Amino acid sequence: MRIVVDAMGSDDHPGPDVAGAVLAARAFGDAIVLVGDRPRIAAVLAAHDTAGLSIDVIHAAEAIGMKDSPSAAARDKRGSSMHVGLQLVRDGAADAFVSAGNTGAILAVATLRQTGLGRIPGILRPALGVVFPIESKPMLIDNGANADAKPEYLLQFGRMGSIYMARMHDIARPRVALISNGEEEGKGNALIKETIPLMIASGLNYVGNIEPKEFVRGDADVGVVDGFTGNVMMKTAEAVASYMSDTIRKYIMAGTLTKIGGVLARPAFQRVRDQLNPDEVGGAPLLGVNGVVIIAHGRSNAHAMRQAIGQARRVVERGITQAIAEGI
Amino acid sequence: MRIVVDAMGSDDHPGPDVAGAVLAARAFGDAIVLVGDRPRIAAVLAAHDTAGLSIDVIHAAEAIGMKDSPSAAARDKRGSSMHVGLQLVRDGAADAFVSAGNTGAILAVATLRQTGLGRIPGILRPALGVVFPIESKPMLIDNGANADAKPEYLLQFGRMGSIYMARMHDIARPRVALISNGEEEGKGNALIKETIPLMIASGLNYVGNIEPKEFVRGDADVGVVDGFTGNVMMKTAEAVASYMSDTIRKYIMAGTLTKIGGVLARPAFQRVRDQLNPDEVGGAPLLGVNGVVIIAHGRSNAHAMRQAIGQARRVVERGITQAIAEGI
Repeated sequence: MRIVVDAMGSDDHPGPDVAGAVLAARAFGDAIVLVGDRPRIAAVLAAHDTAGLSIDVIHAAEAIGMKDSPSAAARDKRGSSMHVGLQLVRDGAADAFVSAGNTGAILAVATLRQTGLGRIPGILRPALGVVFPIESKPMLIDNGANADAKPEYLLQFGRMGSIYMARMHDIARPRVALISNGEEEGKGNALIKETIPLMIASGLNYVGNIEPKEFVRGDADVGVVDGFTGNVMMKTAEAVASYMSDTIRKYIMAGTLTKIGGVLARPAFQRVRDQLNPDEVGGAPLLGVNGVVIIAHGRSNAHAMRQAIGQARRVVERGITQAIAEGI
Repeated sequence: MRIVVDAMGSDDHPGPDVAGAVLAARAFGDAIVLVGDRPRIAAVLAAHDTAGLSIDVIHAAEAIGMKDSPSAAARDKRGSSMHVGLQLVRDGAADAFVSAGNTGAILAVATLRQTGLGRIPGILRPALGVVFPIESKPMLIDNGANADAKPEYLLQFGRMGSIYMARMHDIARPRVALISNGEEEGKGNALIKETIPLMIASGLNYVGNIEPKEFVRGDADVGVVDGFTGNVMMKTAEAVASYMSDTIRKYIMAGTLTKIGGVLARPAFQRVRDQLNPDEVGGAPLLGVNGVVIIAHGRSNAHAMRQAIGQARRVVERGITQAIAEGI
C-alpha cells in the first residue's frame, strides 16, 4: 500500500506531518509519499531514523494555508501539495491521501475531477464524516462539507455513513438516525421533515429522529445532519468539553484540599481526556469522492498524524470507496 | 405586579410549580395567580405556609402535557391552564406568564391572538432566547421557536436579543454575532450569508460570525441562529456537559485513590455544577409576543420556578416588551 501524506498541512507543518509519516511507516510497513516543500521535508526527515522505511518525497512548489480561501486556492494554487498529492491518488500512483490542512481547500480540490479525485458516480455531494469521541464512537455526517443540504443529500450521507461504519467497525446493520430538535412527530425543520420519508423507504436501518442527548448516549451509529448544523454541533461539543475541563481545573486549583483531591484524582481525569481525545479516533473521512481521503485536525501532532494514516490504510483495506460506489 | 404561574406545567406538576410560586410570592412580594386544576393546587397549597402572601387560584379544566402535539393542543384544549393564563395577561389582568410546560404548546398558544397574546406589531416571528449557563452568560436566540428561519427573522432575533441583554444586564451596546461554522469570509450556509448584510446595515453592535468556541469563550452577548441549529446546539452543550460529568464520576469511582481525590475535590465539582446549572439563569424568555412569557425547564424544581418567576418580574420592570415594540 502507498499512502500520500500532505507535509504542508498541519498548523506546525512540516514537523508533525513528517514525524507522523515516519511513525506510520514503521508501524504499518506501508510506503509513504510525503508531498510538499522538498528542502523543508528533507530537513525534518534528517532528524529521524528512517532506515528500512519506504518514504519517498515528491516536491510541491506551493502550499495552501489555513487562511487561504478554499475556492481561490483550489483554482489558483495548482502546484500545491494538496493538488499534487490528490493527483497521485487519482492516477493510481497511491491508495490514499492524508492531510491536516485547510478542510475547505481539501474538499474543494478533492471534489473536482480537474484538480483531484472527482465524485463517485451517482454521488450528489461528498460529505465529511466525523467520529464523535464518546464511548460508543458514533459517526456524525456531514460535518461541514455542505453548509446547505437537500433531502437527497442527507439520504446519501446516511448510506455512506452506514457503509463506513459497517465495514470499519464490523456493525452488521448500523443504526442510522436524523439529528433533530426533537423526536416527536412534527419536530424538525423542513429539510428533516422532507428527508424522513426517504429514510423510511431507504432500506437503511433507520431508527428515527434523535436529539443530541440520545446521540451522545449512543442510540445511533450514524447521525445524519446538514453540514452547517453538524459542524456547529461538533464545535459546540468540543467547546463545552474544553470549557468544562478548564472550569474544573480552575476551581480545583482554588483551594488547598481540592488541589490535593485533584492530584489524587488525576488518573481519572487523564482517562477522561484520553477517551475524549479526538486524535485517538483518527481523522475525518471525506466520503463520496473517488478515492480515500482522510482529513486530520489542523493541530495534529505526530501521533495524531500516525493515527490518521492508520485509519486511511484501513479504509483502503476495507474497500469503502468501492462499497459506496456499489451501494449508491 | 401580578404574575400568572401555570400550575400544570412541570414534569412533576403541580408540586414544584406551586411551591415555586409560594417561594416567589414571599421573596418578591408580588401577587401570584396559579392557574390549573383547583383541587390539586389547593392540596399542594395546604402544605405550605401562605400567610400574608397574595396567591390566587384560577381553575382551568384542561392541561396540556409534554406529549401533546403543540398545534393540536393549542387548537383543541381551549380550557387549558396555558390558554387561561395567557388570556389573563392579554386582557391586562396580569403582567406576565410563567410555565414549565410543553414549550411548543406555549409558543403556539402565546403566538396566536385568538388563543393568547399575539405578536408585537412588526414582529415577523417570536423567538425563544436562552441564556447559556457559562461565565459570561450570553443569550442564544432562537432556541427552537422557528425550526426554519429567514434572514429578516434572524435580524429581528438580533434586535430583540440586544434589547433584552441591554435592559436586563445593563450592557450598553450588546455585541451581536451570527453563529456559524466558521468566521472566515465565505463560511456559513445560505441563510447566514444572506443575513450578514442585514446585520451590517442594522445599527446593531454586530461583531461578525463566530463559531461555538468563541461563543462559549464569551465573544458575544447575543448569538443569533435559526431555531433548529440553536436548539441542537443548546442540547448538544447540555448532553456533553452531562456526559463529561458522568464519565469523570465513573472513572473517579473506579479507583481507591481517585475516589479519595474525588471526595476532597467535591467542593470544586459542586461549584462547576452550580455554575452550569440552567436553573440559576432562570427560564427562557419568549420574545416578540405581546406580553411577558417565561418558559422554565420541564424538570424545574421549586427553586427553578422561583427563579423563573423572579426573571419574569424583572422583564416586566425593565419594560422589555415595550422596548421591543419601539425598537422594531
